[in-house]
Amino acid sequence: MSATELRIDLGRFRKDVEALASIGRDPTGGISRPAWSPAHEEGRAWLLAQLRAAGLAARVDPAGNVFGRLGEGTPVVMTGSHIDTVPRGGPLDGALGVLAGLECLRAIAASGTRPARALEVAAFTDEEGRFYGFFGSRAMTGSLDPRLAERLTDPAGLALPEAMRRAGFDLARAPEARRATQEIAAYVELHIEQGPWLETESLPIGVVEGIVGIRRFRLTFVGQPDHAGTTPMDRRKDAFLTAAEYATKSRELVVRGGEGRAVTTIGVVDVRPGVSNIVPERAALLQELRDPEPAVLERLAARTLQAARRVARRRGLILETEHLMRAEPVRMSPRIQAVIEAAAAHLGLPTRRMPSGAGHDAQVLAAVTDAGMIFVPSQGGRSHRPDEWTDWPALERGANVLLGTLLRLAG
Amino acid sequence: MSATELRIDLGRFRKDVEALASIGRDPTGGISRPAWSPAHEEGRAWLLAQLRAAGLAARVDPAGNVFGRLGEGTPVVMTGSHIDTVPRGGPLDGALGVLAGLECLRAIAASGTRPARALEVAAFTDEEGRFYGFFGSRAMTGSLDPRLAERLTDPAGLALPEAMRRAGFDLARAPEARRATQEIAAYVELHIEQGPWLETESLPIGVVEGIVGIRRFRLTFVGQPDHAGTTPMDRRKDAFLTAAEYATKSRELVVRGGEGRAVTTIGVVDVRPGVSNIVPERAALLQELRDPEPAVLERLAARTLQAARRVARRRGLILETEHLMRAEPVRMSPRIQAVIEAAAAHLGLPTRRMPSGAGHDAQVLAAVTDAGMIFVPSQGGRSHRPDEWTDWPALERGANVLLGTLLRLAG
Repeated sequence: MSATELRIDLGRFRKDVEALASIGRDPTGGISRPAWSPAHEEGRAWLLAQLRAAGLAARVDPAGNVFGRLGEGTPVVMTGSHIDTVPRGGPLDGALGVLAGLECLRAIAASGTRPARALEVAAFTDEEGRFYGFFGSRAMTGSLDPRLAERLTDPAGLALPEAMRRAGFDLARAPEARRATQEIAAYVELHIEQGPWLETESLPIGVVEGIVGIRRFRLTFVGQPDHAGTTPMDRRKDAFLTAAEYATKSRELVVRGGEGRAVTTIGVVDVRPGVSNIVPERAALLQELRDPEPAVLERLAARTLQAARRVARRRGLILETEHLMRAEPVRMSPRIQAVIEAAAAHLGLPTRRMPSGAGHDAQVLAAVTDAGMIFVPSQGGRSHRPDEWTDWPALERGANVLLGTLLRLAG
Repeated sequence: MSATELRIDLGRFRKDVEALASIGRDPTGGISRPAWSPAHEEGRAWLLAQLRAAGLAARVDPAGNVFGRLGEGTPVVMTGSHIDTVPRGGPLDGALGVLAGLECLRAIAASGTRPARALEVAAFTDEEGRFYGFFGSRAMTGSLDPRLAERLTDPAGLALPEAMRRAGFDLARAPEARRATQEIAAYVELHIEQGPWLETESLPIGVVEGIVGIRRFRLTFVGQPDHAGTTPMDRRKDAFLTAAEYATKSRELVVRGGEGRAVTTIGVVDVRPGVSNIVPERAALLQELRDPEPAVLERLAARTLQAARRVARRRGLILETEHLMRAEPVRMSPRIQAVIEAAAAHLGLPTRRMPSGAGHDAQVLAAVTDAGMIFVPSQGGRSHRPDEWTDWPALERGANVLLGTLLRLAG
């Protein structure tokens, strides 16, 4: 059998997906396998065993990343994703990329094919950011900030160094996970889309062009805590109503100026003093903007902040602005996009190029190597929830495109 | 000296205002004398001593109300207000009406004048509603709900029965505070306006025509907790943006349809799950509407709820509605309004009729007797805060209008 006719074994792959999904099953629904938790450690141990059973050279690095390797020498062609999940997440976000990578290497190994370059499958730690988003891929690529890491806690207040200690790791040693840039020839990651487009257009494969940039800021409107009964409407400086007016305006700006791709979310709202009979004095909005185009993101951020200032001024309020996070859009390698398209075409599968609205380890890898991503459809666009799903034929198609891509990249 | 030439003694009155303001002084600013607190008990003891020193028959009833009486027999003409405060409140809200009443009775007693009817000054318990708004005046007028009272707590979770026990009172005995309707011939209360109108129009005296009705409801917009990066704007059911759109609409409705008097406040906002990268699934708004006209209040409540349903439907969300509180507007007695106007005219003071945007014990008394209220200007319209103030000449004018009103009512 020639390498291009090689296919994954769906039964074997499915058994792995089901086995990993049984680790960290949450009694309140879904799968909870947050980074550095006992469930995550159990998942890591299970994965190591599967890698070894597949005849791959398996190891864990000081950042908790798991690697399975087929072949010798550098540079390697790498695939992977992560096995940590959000609380009450689903069975595919992250797990798909790792288990499809395992299945591809197992299929190649079983076929007797020996590509020119070594292949590695990776499971990176804390992609979901329980403590520090992309911890594992950052450590491997040398973009971890150890000082920041020391101070981070999970939402319940557990400190990262302590969580690592409990799992048998030492934060101080995490930077040793770094690998030389020239060791990695390419990185390709299979992932569920987490959005509705592939399903809507009945397309089996998405070829990721880039990953959106994010601006996250807190806007606090400061007015006056007047008596809710005795202060006429035109004398009020109502922080909530002003924030609400801005929020409505902001959605319009993003919908009209975002070319259909930009999104904005105000997920955290804090209104003070927070009693029914006092006009709100402060309303703080934590807002996110995402877009794959740097220029669009920049323009929307500027317009949105300008609108906030304008609404605040018109209503006589003060606006406080804090910039909390700024992640630039990341382009995927055109070379890898072309290879993915060739692999899909060979299988007779139509594709579309598309941005990723969510962050992925591939964006971290893109800083040091040619990186690409393959998307398969998400049922109802759902992810980060127990009913996240993609049917088996669609997963099989995605895994076979990954297999074809890896074989082409490894030569 | 004829009774109509009688005036209060500003120096004596001022000493009382300053003495009571020193009780419950809050280290974080203002005056904290919440009902049933040690500071409130200290205020009650101080007041009893002042009433007795003025030669009045003083007593405390089982609801913690304090009364000072001049003369014998029933029905009595009553004045008063309350000495409990909001946390970090000011020196006049409530205290003014009680201390001006004390001063009026003291001035009458000292003058040797003996009106046909007995006069009483009252300090009613928990007007501000730390546990149960208008507790004291409700108990006296027979409109206390003892079953409700048993379950109420303050915002920190302290139960009303326990708070009363600590102050030496027994909730079970509070209904004994009830007095027969025919015992009270009239009630008139002097209070700061707590709004801007008298100051704006440079008028010394407001004659309250009625007290606004209140509708309080919780509107919960229920959408979908989608991924904040991968869900396009037009596929979202964003509970916060929908609630914000409604809030903006609701302000417009109240400003346009409220004839300049209606107000609305959304003081409590709860957005869930409340994280930056998940589209809000639930946004709960606690909203209040106030207006002195029953028909206007009814119309605004209906239009506002209709707008909420409409916005929710258009955005594909579910709206949950809970009606939390409904207080009907209360009319002050036309007879007492006329008497107040006559008393003010006698002093050469112009007046205006106006509604009260805040609730007062007078609205509870209005259910059992002819009730009226006199307003004096509030500096900057401020109240419920440490810088709540009215200057001494303005307070003196208000107290003298109260004195003239009481003398006319008592005959």
